[in-house]
Amino acid sequence: MDKATTEHIVWHQHAIDRAARAALNGHPPLLLWFTGLSGSGKSTLAGALEHELHRRGVRTYLLDGDNVRHGLCSDLGFAPADRQENLRRVGEVAKLMVDAGLVVLAAFVSPYRAERDAIRARFADGEFIEVFVDTPLAACEARDPKGLYKKARAGEIRHFTGIDDPYEAPLQPEIRLVNDNLPLAEGVARLLSALQQHGVLP
Amino acid sequence: MDKATTEHIVWHQHAIDRAARAALNGHPPLLLWFTGLSGSGKSTLAGALEHELHRRGVRTYLLDGDNVRHGLCSDLGFAPADRQENLRRVGEVAKLMVDAGLVVLAAFVSPYRAERDAIRARFADGEFIEVFVDTPLAACEARDPKGLYKKARAGEIRHFTGIDDPYEAPLQPEIRLVNDNLPLAEGVARLLSALQQHGVLP
Repeated sequence: MDKATTEHIVWHQHAIDRAARAALNGHPPLLLWFTGLSGSGKSTLAGALEHELHRRGVRTYLLDGDNVRHGLCSDLGFAPADRQENLRRVGEVAKLMVDAGLVVLAAFVSPYRAERDAIRARFADGEFIEVFVDTPLAACEARDPKGLYKKARAGEIRHFTGIDDPYEAPLQPEIRLVNDNLPLAEGVARLLSALQQHGVLP
Repeated sequence: MDKATTEHIVWHQHAIDRAARAALNGHPPLLLWFTGLSGSGKSTLAGALEHELHRRGVRTYLLDGDNVRHGLCSDLGFAPADRQENLRRVGEVAKLMVDAGLVVLAAFVSPYRAERDAIRARFADGEFIEVFVDTPLAACEARDPKGLYKKARAGEIRHFTGIDDPYEAPLQPEIRLVNDNLPLAEGVARLLSALQQHGVLP
């Protein structure tokens, strides 16, 4: 029984923690929070960046409306309180995933400064990187990939960010990317460079 | 711009999916759902198993009341509907983490068959492994690590599983571990052996 007893003690003293996961993965965990108007290119940029990070051996995961709204937040609608709870849960899931050692990329309009800052406050210094995808409203509306701006202008959607609801731009985002006619590869290159400058990528 | 355009297309055609993550990690993802009475040893076994899996290079994460109740489910209490929603969210977080390539270990009493089966139904065949930690009630009550049985017997806690609320034992769990005076190392060895038999560990 000695071995079992010893191992019991060892296991409890050395639970698998962030340091152990970072050592196994070869990189620290991180949350990259992409914020910007609908149609600004957040998801496309985040997906392309994830591709590059994965190619370099980084353990990643991309959280967006698609994989959250159909599962974890399927009980929530789009009223203000529901949207707030949706973002809160996304932040908490990201926190668990960062604890699990992953580089999490989250792409949500997240228009209110207070909500983004509340998520930031859940993370250690340097673990939360705010990526402001700063695309002019006119460009977002010209693209309108889901036809949402058209509906908002027609009054079919109310409280649409940028039209009849405010977008509160980040005051001091870690990364700001002006995404107006920027080729995707160039955008990804700039993001990689910025992450290196922040010391969160080798 | 040719390169950018090409990469754009490639990125969109080859989003990072489960296969890509499994190739990078060297193992498929999985959810190990530990169920059993309070004090049955679920968390201790799950923690010790996680330690062993991590040592073998498996990317793991342990979900339990501690890391879920204080964050993602901090808005929930312990009324039946809240406990149900708590487990539903845990299942959805586990689903996202499995999608992210992790071997997730979840340790929750989860006394009702229907709730466990609802979580199972969210996963592909073979991705959900139910681990029934089958410890006799008398043994759990004798250990009573948190003093909860004592309070339940005194009527200070109502609807306590095993005392005045039922525990619905799994009918066909993938793994059943009788955990009565079983040394921890032996329990972990049996779990590892069972996982190998299920073909989910190399």
